[in-house]
Amino acid sequence: MRVVALAGGIGGAKLAHGLALAAVTASPPHELTVVVNTADDLELHGLHVSPDLDTVMYTLAGVADRERGWGLAQETWQASEMLAAYGAETWFRLGDRDLATHLVRSERLGRGERLTVVTAALASALGVGTRLLPMSDQPVRTKVGTDAGWFDFQEWFVRRGQRDEVRELRIEGLADARPTPEVLAAVRSADAIVLAPSNPFLSIGPILGLPGMADAVREAGAPVVAVSPIVGGTALKGPADRMLRSLGGEASAAGIARHYAQRHPGILDGLVIDDADAAQASDIEALGLRLLVTGTVMRDDADRERLARETLEFAVGLRPR
Amino acid sequence: MRVVALAGGIGGAKLAHGLALAAVTASPPHELTVVVNTADDLELHGLHVSPDLDTVMYTLAGVADRERGWGLAQETWQASEMLAAYGAETWFRLGDRDLATHLVRSERLGRGERLTVVTAALASALGVGTRLLPMSDQPVRTKVGTDAGWFDFQEWFVRRGQRDEVRELRIEGLADARPTPEVLAAVRSADAIVLAPSNPFLSIGPILGLPGMADAVREAGAPVVAVSPIVGGTALKGPADRMLRSLGGEASAAGIARHYAQRHPGILDGLVIDDADAAQASDIEALGLRLLVTGTVMRDDADRERLARETLEFAVGLRPR
Repeated sequence: MRVVALAGGIGGAKLAHGLALAAVTASPPHELTVVVNTADDLELHGLHVSPDLDTVMYTLAGVADRERGWGLAQETWQASEMLAAYGAETWFRLGDRDLATHLVRSERLGRGERLTVVTAALASALGVGTRLLPMSDQPVRTKVGTDAGWFDFQEWFVRRGQRDEVRELRIEGLADARPTPEVLAAVRSADAIVLAPSNPFLSIGPILGLPGMADAVREAGAPVVAVSPIVGGTALKGPADRMLRSLGGEASAAGIARHYAQRHPGILDGLVIDDADAAQASDIEALGLRLLVTGTVMRDDADRERLARETLEFAVGLRPR
Repeated sequence: MRVVALAGGIGGAKLAHGLALAAVTASPPHELTVVVNTADDLELHGLHVSPDLDTVMYTLAGVADRERGWGLAQETWQASEMLAAYGAETWFRLGDRDLATHLVRSERLGRGERLTVVTAALASALGVGTRLLPMSDQPVRTKVGTDAGWFDFQEWFVRRGQRDEVRELRIEGLADARPTPEVLAAVRSADAIVLAPSNPFLSIGPILGLPGMADAVREAGAPVVAVSPIVGGTALKGPADRMLRSLGGEASAAGIARHYAQRHPGILDGLVIDDADAAQASDIEALGLRLLVTGTVMRDDADRERLARETLEFAVGLRPR
């Protein structure tokens, strides 16, 4: 079975890891492709940093720091301290080991290689068996509109600690960017498409917003299911709950269902929600969505793999190819 | 008194440090400018690395690693290990703290700033009071011709461990490069000019070889003295002794005197040689050079300052302005 997951940062990385674990134990093994958001990318100290790609890559490689939630395990911060001594901005902290990733990526991009090719080389060097694809090779950058003005996404997210209510989002470059041929080919041949429990505005939104991408997903003929990033009214990680409220929605599993129904009509066949949100089942089914109610909080690898397996079984049961 | 030193790597850094110590204790304090070779610069992982500038800067800032002889004290190598995991070349080792220097430099050069300006900012951030000037803002690169072929300087020096006899040197870009306005102004207003005990081919040669530079030194009217990098027939550090022999000279204090007399005629007024080489005095004086014979091996800060002080007194005594 060919599985395609669309993912952002931490929640996406966890489910991608679960799908990778489920893929290798399936018989025959699934072919897993993870398409990752790049709208959170940024330039720092002249380097190209891809936070979501790195979070997914490090997680799949088993070298992510599990407590911090981002970056590499056994990380040190010597370069960052020295950058501070030079008066350079260090609000986006780059670990010493992590720097190597950005150096290799930036040098190869500077030589004209595509982010897709560079990402594959980095992931392969770290022993990642899963196919990891940036959503696009062209620059796409999320801008956040608040009462304090417009900010680059990471500036709002990290530097300002998400303290400003988000009034508006602008995904710059989206109209001029395209999904890569690799992404389109993977989607078109997919047997199941999973939208990871990532932020629907910041992570899944930019991917589905790429010209031609939503149509490709709709026309793939594969079942498409999302895993809700909202459990019991709050986001397990990140600002999805606050953004659902401030951008005119509702921070709930049903709010996620409505978000996808309104912004990406006809994309979803089913939604995976947490046991804690079982009471919202009829609201969600009223939107024409099929439902899987299960434990969606991924505390350990076993949780990740179980949720991934259940999600795939649910998807295939909806609309077998 | 305005003092200008021309310097390369480790030997140059030590004497520059001695001159800086002597400068601040003089009354009134000397104004010290150190002009540093950039022909050893290289591009690594997309970063601009200036080994000689960094060695001098770290030494003057008191943050150099004294045992290793290059790079920063309390250095770690996490990024380098990760670069190796990615299959990147790591024969030129970049420490984690050191990386910050290259990141800041490269980013600012990438924005179109001059190396002169960036170097001043880096040195100032590290608390260096001495004026540190790259010899040129234009790229100059030493190439080494051997029986095994031509190599970039650092490739021969570090990667191949200087194992190939040097048959020929080519300083690429030299004819098209210029000393900076800051370098020329410092030389023209100097009261004493000191050629540090750096490699005469690799460090001092490129500086004096810049179009207009040798004339500026000759026409400055200031006494010009060199400190011999050869003591007892060997170079204290680096390949100067082997290069003197393989490029048609002699690895001795007198060989240094002849080298400057032949390659840079009329530049030197005097030479500082080690007590161990006192027997060569008459040979050197026969070339028209005045001599200071003293201890030139700099084992500690006191050695550095004493040699610097003696060298300056020697210079001023030769041709007071």
